[in-house]
Amino acid sequence: MTASEIRALFAVASRPEVVSLAGGMPYLPVLPLDSLAEELAQVVAVDGMTALQYGSAQGTAELREQICEVMALEGIRGHADDVTVTVGSQMALDMVTRIFCDPGDVVLAEAPSYVGALTTFASYQAQVVHVQMDDDGLVPAALDAALRSLRAEGRAAKFLYTIPNFHNPAGVTLAVSRRTEVLEVCARHGLLIIEDNPYGLLGFDGQTYPAMRAYDPDNVVYLGSFSKTFAPGLRVGWALAPHAVREKLVLAAETATLCPPTFTQALVSRYLDQHDWKGQIKNYQEAYRDRRDAMVAALHQYLPPGCRWTHPAGGFYVWLTVPDGLDTKAMLPRAVSQRVAYVPGTAFYADSLGSQQMRLSFCYPTPERITEGVRRLATVLEGELERHRTFGSVSPRVVHGPQSPSPDTA
Amino acid sequence: MTASEIRALFAVASRPEVVSLAGGMPYLPVLPLDSLAEELAQVVAVDGMTALQYGSAQGTAELREQICEVMALEGIRGHADDVTVTVGSQMALDMVTRIFCDPGDVVLAEAPSYVGALTTFASYQAQVVHVQMDDDGLVPAALDAALRSLRAEGRAAKFLYTIPNFHNPAGVTLAVSRRTEVLEVCARHGLLIIEDNPYGLLGFDGQTYPAMRAYDPDNVVYLGSFSKTFAPGLRVGWALAPHAVREKLVLAAETATLCPPTFTQALVSRYLDQHDWKGQIKNYQEAYRDRRDAMVAALHQYLPPGCRWTHPAGGFYVWLTVPDGLDTKAMLPRAVSQRVAYVPGTAFYADSLGSQQMRLSFCYPTPERITEGVRRLATVLEGELERHRTFGSVSPRVVHGPQSPSPDTA
Repeated sequence: MTASEIRALFAVASRPEVVSLAGGMPYLPVLPLDSLAEELAQVVAVDGMTALQYGSAQGTAELREQICEVMALEGIRGHADDVTVTVGSQMALDMVTRIFCDPGDVVLAEAPSYVGALTTFASYQAQVVHVQMDDDGLVPAALDAALRSLRAEGRAAKFLYTIPNFHNPAGVTLAVSRRTEVLEVCARHGLLIIEDNPYGLLGFDGQTYPAMRAYDPDNVVYLGSFSKTFAPGLRVGWALAPHAVREKLVLAAETATLCPPTFTQALVSRYLDQHDWKGQIKNYQEAYRDRRDAMVAALHQYLPPGCRWTHPAGGFYVWLTVPDGLDTKAMLPRAVSQRVAYVPGTAFYADSLGSQQMRLSFCYPTPERITEGVRRLATVLEGELERHRTFGSVSPRVVHGPQSPSPDTA
Repeated sequence: MTASEIRALFAVASRPEVVSLAGGMPYLPVLPLDSLAEELAQVVAVDGMTALQYGSAQGTAELREQICEVMALEGIRGHADDVTVTVGSQMALDMVTRIFCDPGDVVLAEAPSYVGALTTFASYQAQVVHVQMDDDGLVPAALDAALRSLRAEGRAAKFLYTIPNFHNPAGVTLAVSRRTEVLEVCARHGLLIIEDNPYGLLGFDGQTYPAMRAYDPDNVVYLGSFSKTFAPGLRVGWALAPHAVREKLVLAAETATLCPPTFTQALVSRYLDQHDWKGQIKNYQEAYRDRRDAMVAALHQYLPPGCRWTHPAGGFYVWLTVPDGLDTKAMLPRAVSQRVAYVPGTAFYADSLGSQQMRLSFCYPTPERITEGVRRLATVLEGELERHRTFGSVSPRVVHGPQSPSPDTA
C-alpha cells in the first residue's frame, strides 16, 4: 500500500460504524472527570507560578520522588536522582537510541516488537535483530544464540529492547524464572537492557511481576509511563537509568525540549498526591479484563479452524495468527469494508515477517463492540479462506525465521 | 569552569538574595491565575475524553488553525496543514536539525546566537559558522561573504538559523529593509532559512515586524512559541514549514514523542478561544517595557566608562560589552559573591568568542531589583577594572573575528 492508500484506509477505519481493534487508546471513560477537574484546577490556582514556568530538564523533584514510589510496586529500589521525566516514554526511548546508536549499529528486540520502537530505531538507522518469543516471552537460549551469531560476525549489539509484561503486540509475559536467565545472558555478553514497561501494573489477576530492573540496577534502563495508568494526553513518562546514562539522558532531553512540560508534571503530581491512584489502576484492570474476556470468548466462538492466538494476562493486545495462505496486510482493505480494523503483523517486524499475523486491541471498544468486531473479522477470514481455496495464495508466502509467540489453538 | 563548579555557582546564584539577570523566565505574575484555573477545569470536565487521550502527531486541527491566526499578526498567510505543533519551539528546532544535518554539516547563525540552538546543532555534530550582526541585526553582506567563502572551500551550508526580532542574546532587531535583502542572498545561494521568532509579539512600542516567512513561503521554516506570549510550562510551540519539510517534520515528531501533549494543546486552544489573549500580550509588553527602561537607565547611571550595550525594542535581553581586558566568564564567581548573576557571552558562540560580553535579562526581576542588580554589577566591574589596572589581564585576550552587535555607548 502507498502512503496515500494507508491514509485513505485509516480515514475509513476511523468512521464510527467501523469496530477498530487497531488502536492502542486507553479506555478513559473510567476516569472520574468531575473530581479530576476540581483537583487539577488547584494546580493553576495554587501552584500556577511554578507549574506554568520553565522547569528542570530532568523533571520536577516532586514527581521524580513519586515515580520511585510507583516503581516500588514492581520491586524497584530507585533514587529520584536517577529518574529523568520525558514526554511519554517514547521520548525516553528516542533519547536512549540517540545516545547509544550510530547508523548501522545493531539492537536486539523481540519478534514481534513495538512498532514505535522499531520506527525510532529505523530513524537512527540502527539495524534490528529480532529474537524469538514463545508463550513465556523472550527465549533466553535464542537471545544467547543471536548474540553468539553476531559475535561470530565480529559485530556487537548496543542493547536489548524488551517489553517483559503483557507484550505489545504479542500479549505474552516473560516468565519470572526467565527474567534472571535473560539478565545473566545479557551480563555475560556485556549487553545493556532497555526494559519498556507501560503495562506492568495492568495485570488482570492482580499479580505484579518484578521488573528486570529490580534484579539489576546497573545494567537496565527502565522506561515507565503514566499513559496507561492515568492518561496518555499528558505525555508524562520517564526513564530510570544508571548514573552515567542518566547524565547523558538529561543533556539529550535538554537539547530536545529544554524541559518536559512543567504543567503536566504538576498535574500528575497532584493526582498522585490527592487521588486514589491505586484504586484507579484497579478500575482500569477491571475494564480491560472484561474486554480481554470478551475478545478471547469471541475468538473461540467465531474464528475458523487454523487460527491461533495468545491469551494475555494483562495489557491491551492479542496476537492472532491466521491460517496458512492468508495475508493480513493484503486482506485489511476487505476487513475495513466489512467494518472491522486491526494492525497487520508486518508493522511489528523490522524485516518482512508478520504477514500471517495481526494485532487485535481490546483496550478501547466496549465488550459488545469487541464481540461484534471479532464476528466481522471471522466473516472476513472465512471469505479469505474461500478465496484461497478457489484461487490459491495471491501474494508469495514469506518463510518464517524466528517464530512468533506460540499461541493458543482455537 | 568544570561542570561541578558551574552547578555550585548556579546553586548560589539561585538564592533569593542574588539578583539574577541570567535566566530567561517570563514574568508570569501578569497572568490571571483564577480565571485560568476555571478554564482548565472546563478542559478536563468538558473535553477530558479528548484532551487526556492520544492525539495526532502533527497536533490538533483546532490549535493549528488558531496558530495561523496568531501568525497573521506578523503578515503570515499560512495553512493549518503546514503547521506542526511541538513540545516548545526547541523541539521544532531539534527536529529540523535532525532532518537536515549530518555530522560535519555547516549551519549559519548570527554572532552571537541562542545558546539552546547552538547546543542542538552541537548534538548533531553540525558546525556553526557565525555571521556578523550590527544594530540593525544580521548584516546581509556578511552573510553573502560567508556563503561565498564556504563555496570557495567547496562546502555548502544546510540552513541559516536566525532570530530576526528582539534577538536572544543580542537584543537587536533585523531592520525591515534588510529582511528582503537577507531573503535574496539566501535565495541566490539556495539556502533554507530557519526563522526563530519567540519574541516577535513583544515589541515595546506596539510595532509588529513582518516575519521573513511573510515574504517567502517556500524557503523559510518559521518557528513560533506560546512560551513568551502565554506560559512556557505548557511547552507548546510550532513550526510552519513548506509542505515537503512539514511531512518529514511530522514523521520525526511522531518518532520522538508519538504526539505532543494533547492536554496542553487543548488548554492553549481554550485560552485563545475564551481569553483576551491579545490583551494579555499587551500586559506582558508593558511589564517588560518597564523592566527594559529600568535596566537601560541603570546601565547609564552606574556602569563605568568603556561599557557598551544594545537598546532592545522588545524581548527579554540586553547585550553588554565590558571594557577591554575584562573577562566576563572569569569574573562571574566574583559577581555572584556580590549577589548578581548574568550569562557570560561565551555561551552564545560556537567558537571561543564572547569573553568580553554578557547577556543581561530584564524579563523576570522587578524594576527595583533590576536597578539594584545593575548597581551591584557596576561595583563588580569597577573592582575588575581596578584589578586589571594593578595586575594586567589575567586571561589571554581573544581576538574578535565577526563583530558582536554594535551597541550604545555609555
